[in-house]
Amino acid sequence: MNRKMILYIVGMVLRIEAGLMLLPAIVSYIYKENTFPIFFGCAVVAFMIGIAMSFKLPKNTSFYAREGFVTVALSWIILSVVGAVPFIISGEIADPIDALFEIVSGFTTTGASILINVEDMSKAMLFWRSFSHWIGGMGILVFFLALFPTASGRNIYLIRAESTGPEVGKFVPKLKETATYLYAIYFGLSVLMFILLLLGGMPVFDALCDVFGSAGTGGFGIKADSMAGYSPYIQMVTAVFMLLFGVNFTFFYFIVSKRILSALGMEEVRWYFIIFIFAATVITCNLNATFGTSPKNLQDAVFQVSSIMTSTGYSTVDFDKWPEISKFVLCFIMFTGACSGSTGGGIKVARFVIWFKQIGKQLSLLIHPRRVKVLRMDGKKIEHDTIRIVNCYFAIYFLIFTLSFFIICIDNFDLTSSFTAVSATFNNIGPGLGVCGPARNFASFSYVSKLVLIFDMLAGRLEIFPMVLLFAPGTWKRNG
Amino acid sequence: MNRKMILYIVGMVLRIEAGLMLLPAIVSYIYKENTFPIFFGCAVVAFMIGIAMSFKLPKNTSFYAREGFVTVALSWIILSVVGAVPFIISGEIADPIDALFEIVSGFTTTGASILINVEDMSKAMLFWRSFSHWIGGMGILVFFLALFPTASGRNIYLIRAESTGPEVGKFVPKLKETATYLYAIYFGLSVLMFILLLLGGMPVFDALCDVFGSAGTGGFGIKADSMAGYSPYIQMVTAVFMLLFGVNFTFFYFIVSKRILSALGMEEVRWYFIIFIFAATVITCNLNATFGTSPKNLQDAVFQVSSIMTSTGYSTVDFDKWPEISKFVLCFIMFTGACSGSTGGGIKVARFVIWFKQIGKQLSLLIHPRRVKVLRMDGKKIEHDTIRIVNCYFAIYFLIFTLSFFIICIDNFDLTSSFTAVSATFNNIGPGLGVCGPARNFASFSYVSKLVLIFDMLAGRLEIFPMVLLFAPGTWKRNG
Repeated sequence: MNRKMILYIVGMVLRIEAGLMLLPAIVSYIYKENTFPIFFGCAVVAFMIGIAMSFKLPKNTSFYAREGFVTVALSWIILSVVGAVPFIISGEIADPIDALFEIVSGFTTTGASILINVEDMSKAMLFWRSFSHWIGGMGILVFFLALFPTASGRNIYLIRAESTGPEVGKFVPKLKETATYLYAIYFGLSVLMFILLLLGGMPVFDALCDVFGSAGTGGFGIKADSMAGYSPYIQMVTAVFMLLFGVNFTFFYFIVSKRILSALGMEEVRWYFIIFIFAATVITCNLNATFGTSPKNLQDAVFQVSSIMTSTGYSTVDFDKWPEISKFVLCFIMFTGACSGSTGGGIKVARFVIWFKQIGKQLSLLIHPRRVKVLRMDGKKIEHDTIRIVNCYFAIYFLIFTLSFFIICIDNFDLTSSFTAVSATFNNIGPGLGVCGPARNFASFSYVSKLVLIFDMLAGRLEIFPMVLLFAPGTWKRNG
Repeated sequence: MNRKMILYIVGMVLRIEAGLMLLPAIVSYIYKENTFPIFFGCAVVAFMIGIAMSFKLPKNTSFYAREGFVTVALSWIILSVVGAVPFIISGEIADPIDALFEIVSGFTTTGASILINVEDMSKAMLFWRSFSHWIGGMGILVFFLALFPTASGRNIYLIRAESTGPEVGKFVPKLKETATYLYAIYFGLSVLMFILLLLGGMPVFDALCDVFGSAGTGGFGIKADSMAGYSPYIQMVTAVFMLLFGVNFTFFYFIVSKRILSALGMEEVRWYFIIFIFAATVITCNLNATFGTSPKNLQDAVFQVSSIMTSTGYSTVDFDKWPEISKFVLCFIMFTGACSGSTGGGIKVARFVIWFKQIGKQLSLLIHPRRVKVLRMDGKKIEHDTIRIVNCYFAIYFLIFTLSFFIICIDNFDLTSSFTAVSATFNNIGPGLGVCGPARNFASFSYVSKLVLIFDMLAGRLEIFPMVLLFAPGTWKRNG
């Protein structure tokens, strides 16, 4: 284990965070709020600590999967702890656990809030909260690699540990270019969305926060009613962009490089849209049947499916009051989640596709025990390793989910509330049903529950393995 | 596909069922009820059809996995359809779908009932209902093999398709002996339980039905309050025997053949008891904390955990009124279920053990990519095939569960009720929570939901593959 290299990269991450904290400081300055010194001070202190940790590149830059996982896990924890400080110092979220919950929810793009009245917050804090979504969406280490491509030995392990989905690779031969392309697409789509929102008459500050929340598929709102108060145009722009940010970014890369056939051939993206259309249709019909036919039902269904499936978590309506089958569909797409290689959360469509492809193979083997069948995706063979990791992912996902659910139940809320509290945080959605429904918040959970949910948010965003390996004793043995 | 051989065996199953139907006819005769001609008539007709189907052994007795799965699935469907006839003719359950639901619930040892007042039923019908648990518990085809060991080509495929658990084999070299041993243990334990119940002053008829329900881990009660009205002694005897019938029968075989060390070395059985003790302890503490300390809490917890974990479904208390963490624990053990090679339902402890063992291997591979690690259980290597089938089992289990849950939601009961309705039938438990809780029943579900739940009960009891393969087009192709 190359601890010096880990320390070095975490230090670099702190330096980047310090730089990013200057943005809310500027917001504070513009709106003449008294939080300017807080953000500026935090940035300076974080930068100095970062400098101390990464003063010079270690001689030994060897860096393997182990180091990759640990670096990513530690970076995210420190990012969150430092990010919570402005909330605490300003007193806007005085309780340290609550502040940590809120910022972890931000960086992990969950969007679950403990705030009882979000409109009481200062603009700078609201900005920092929403901006954390944008940072966490594509990943702080991918950002680091796009900025300093040569600084860290074998970067592939960092990208693997931070990106989403079962088969993480690079879509161009050079890794630094992949990181740069990813951020270029991310940035480009964000700017486009911003312009479209401004054209719809949305105030600049609101539009910025909306873009951060949608691009990162985070979902922190700056209004008590989330997105319900905005015009249908703004809601639809948001719905479409949430959906786009949930698409595998390789798809956009294919489109930009004019490989349309390759783009259309992506099975995961096809399934993603099939599930979206199916879910939106079922909910629209269900709402029409329950509340009477109205075009608003289609609009709400499309918005909510897009929001929940991509793990954003914005709402235009209190879906906790929807009929059961609509709630079931929302619960289901909480788990499928978005595409791998997107900023979205959940288990990811690709994992389900691979998981279910096994069924066909197994059934065929039961009928014809000697027939050889190869699993393929996008025309390519799925490696045995990938299948094994996907299976293991489901097992460990189930285990962590069940343990978390068990602990949350101690708070003695109804089972649906407890279940969706875990589901909404572990899948990085935001709102659940019942006590943590869209019209309510996570403030009523106990400290123990909040700590569990903080772990779940981090584990969910980093796709479990980094967080688990961080605490596994075997990871830290020298002789490995 | 050897269709003649399938027809032959299904015919033999019908003949056996005809024979077994004579028992309720005798009960009817003893209690001077008017249902004697119904059972006797059904038995005669079933026997004649059975004779017609299995008049002589086909020349070609070749029999492979495919035939095994199809035979088992068809046998169980026909067994159920014929078994439902007495309910319909007598008018005691006049609705054919309800009658089918009730008897499928019986044979699959689920114990979910559509009866609003069970005490209105005639003794003979109550007997038939409970007796179906005993038949279904160990399996009608295992019974057939124990009776006619040489009649059916490669019997191993029949046992594999009907027995529970991921690794189905024989514990003595000869298959017919295995089948005989299984039924000998089953019969022996049943008789022992019967005697102990009689010693506790339970009426003979009640004791018989209690034994059938416990041995098959079925759970049909003959009283409106299930087991709540019986003495603590009778409740505890029932609890202990439910637990025993949920143990892998290989364990008893080891005990009988004095291989105590082999018995104690069975990992699945150890985990089974660990989960039992953990669940009972949590619930006892939770009940003590909620309702005040009382020895009855321990008693109820032990009974209910034993009942739900083994998938029996008897109740001594309305656990739907328990606090949430107790309900969560009950939900959880609905899924773990009992041991493989027992009469119990659920996913089975062994599958979870194998599933979770993968996690350790995968984490170790992430840290040391080149280190080879072999998964072991009971000291023996777990074959790659077994692991693949277990993974596939979880995937297809999830798929069927989700589809069923989706359809049940159309009835618009709350999510907990719908979820536990599927969970209680697919895992062959019986009662769920909410509308299908222990103090209520499945009568209020729609026909569509009932048909889905009937499929789930059969799929759960036969561990999915036979039911799925029966409907897979590939199974029926000639060139296989």
